[in-house]
Amino acid sequence: MTELGAITRRDVVGGIGMGLAAASMPALAATPGRKIGYAIVGLGSYATRQIMPNFVGCEHSRIVALVSGTPAKLEQYGAQYGVPKTHWYNYGNFDRIRDNPDIDAVYIILPNSMHAEYTVRAAQAGKHVMCEKPMAISVAECETMIAACRKAGKKLMIGYRSRFEQYNRLAIELARGGHVGPTQIITAEHGFYARPNQWRLDRPLSGGGSLMDIGIYSLNATRYLTGEEPVEVVASESTDKSDPRFATVEDRINFLLRFPSGVAATCVSSYSSAHNSYRVIGTQGYIDMEPATPYEGHSMRIRKDGQVTQRTLPPAAKTQWAGQLDHLSEAILNGTDVIVPGEEGLADMRVIEAIYRSAREGRAVKVQA
Amino acid sequence: MTELGAITRRDVVGGIGMGLAAASMPALAATPGRKIGYAIVGLGSYATRQIMPNFVGCEHSRIVALVSGTPAKLEQYGAQYGVPKTHWYNYGNFDRIRDNPDIDAVYIILPNSMHAEYTVRAAQAGKHVMCEKPMAISVAECETMIAACRKAGKKLMIGYRSRFEQYNRLAIELARGGHVGPTQIITAEHGFYARPNQWRLDRPLSGGGSLMDIGIYSLNATRYLTGEEPVEVVASESTDKSDPRFATVEDRINFLLRFPSGVAATCVSSYSSAHNSYRVIGTQGYIDMEPATPYEGHSMRIRKDGQVTQRTLPPAAKTQWAGQLDHLSEAILNGTDVIVPGEEGLADMRVIEAIYRSAREGRAVKVQA
Repeated sequence: MTELGAITRRDVVGGIGMGLAAASMPALAATPGRKIGYAIVGLGSYATRQIMPNFVGCEHSRIVALVSGTPAKLEQYGAQYGVPKTHWYNYGNFDRIRDNPDIDAVYIILPNSMHAEYTVRAAQAGKHVMCEKPMAISVAECETMIAACRKAGKKLMIGYRSRFEQYNRLAIELARGGHVGPTQIITAEHGFYARPNQWRLDRPLSGGGSLMDIGIYSLNATRYLTGEEPVEVVASESTDKSDPRFATVEDRINFLLRFPSGVAATCVSSYSSAHNSYRVIGTQGYIDMEPATPYEGHSMRIRKDGQVTQRTLPPAAKTQWAGQLDHLSEAILNGTDVIVPGEEGLADMRVIEAIYRSAREGRAVKVQA
Repeated sequence: MTELGAITRRDVVGGIGMGLAAASMPALAATPGRKIGYAIVGLGSYATRQIMPNFVGCEHSRIVALVSGTPAKLEQYGAQYGVPKTHWYNYGNFDRIRDNPDIDAVYIILPNSMHAEYTVRAAQAGKHVMCEKPMAISVAECETMIAACRKAGKKLMIGYRSRFEQYNRLAIELARGGHVGPTQIITAEHGFYARPNQWRLDRPLSGGGSLMDIGIYSLNATRYLTGEEPVEVVASESTDKSDPRFATVEDRINFLLRFPSGVAATCVSSYSSAHNSYRVIGTQGYIDMEPATPYEGHSMRIRKDGQVTQRTLPPAAKTQWAGQLDHLSEAILNGTDVIVPGEEGLADMRVIEAIYRSAREGRAVKVQA
């Protein structure tokens, strides 16, 4: 997903054919070992403001190609990142990435409804795939994507950046290790005030509202903090249909999850209020993160034996984005597995479908395993 | 309810008859105006540690009689509060309070399942009633209690102490006044680790588990922070039935509420983890209370325009308990209405029944108005 700003429709549809004459890549900063070459697919806000600037901190990852429907963006970012015209693509000629051996992998940062198509096309072009979350807009699409990458013998990883962020990693370790006793309850809240006129408010592009965007952070956190899959979901939606932002997608959709161990989670997903927190409450205290999944400025407090302490970590060696990129690159280079493969995106999507069904039908819904 | 400690069964059943010879009350501390005389019904932990010590800060309320099934407690607290033997009662001779003109009102601090009976008997004895929350263990009981007090022409007030606590009052004012924009979401969490072998874990006495005890704080907060009645509830229970504490009552029961204005609330109720907080999230920020409803040490933080500030109030003139007692006393003295009458307890109970039904039947439940 693209948390900030908007990818315009113009950015993702249409596009102009470009010359594809082969040309050698410009020299990149010298680093030991081979770097995996990425084609950035979609030059919206999240790609250009977060992902691309973070390649500079990568050991094993570099930008080698750009894909956009907007020629001016290719010009701008091609110049900024030293990507020659020969390595520019649009959505019409995308499949020609097959013929470019500099491209090892693609990073798909498009509106949600385009994830499946471009993942499948990238796999068929013989490329590994990093795909933003939510992985797609349905369980069926996720399964198609996984099958396509498996058939092509290519890796598929979903952009769950928080799994490469040190406070979240520590929270996972502490929660699963029973640092505050066995986990009893997790509360997770994510939301922001969505400005009008963005692709995220347009169901054909987004596949849904806040849950398919910021709300997935609440859901995913409950899963990574427990290491379990929820067995049952109940949800409640509150959307002001007179608000033009919500003509096609939901605003607030809160949900309760029950996990096999008995952990109970309460989750907030909102397009009308700001939230970024989770708390793991065990029998002996809690692990509190607020903000929990920001770009920077994570804050962890632990309550144990009646004392609340702030837990501060030294600066990380890599940003969460550099860590995420290098994780896939190392998996490609070493033939190892990624920790957030397509199956992880699929697992979230199964719960998301259950949440929507629960809210729509007014009943508890079992999550399909 | 009695948050700390336990009233034993011995305290609430059986009991020994006591002499009821009339005697004049000892002189109490001189204060201006008449003080309403209360009979304390039930001398458990909450009564003896919280309620009774707080009469000292009251302007219009005094302890004039004690009701207990434990003679030693009558001796102990009779001596401590200067209540003579003539003003001691047990559950067998309770109805004789009718003949004691010093008693204007009773304060019922018994296990939940006894609230209805003793409220009705007190009203029939011509006394006003303060009754602890939850008001009773069913909507039907609440309706019977309201009818009995109405028929007797006596006031009925429920012990919602937070309504007489200044941080909660400020939170209500700020939330309803739109200080952080119109409220979008309320999160409310209450819980504690319930020790075994207490009346609160015995359904015939408690009527239910965490929701009938600490969880009502989460529910009631969403109602007083909005000033609205929820229209629909979904709930999810998680109880380890192999834990002997939970042979007859629920452990965790979380619930989502939807209000007419669109406000969505997520609520935690737990007997296995410690929680005491709520947060009102509007379009422009939040009002955060943690702890929200403690005996003391309330803490309020407000986030607005991106800035988080701690809001500290000067010490209150009266404790929440003294404020609560004097509120009923003033209503009796002046013939005014109380802000938390039986109808307020009934409204909570309607939602509680809906929550239990939702969790049991696995479906959304409309709240009966």
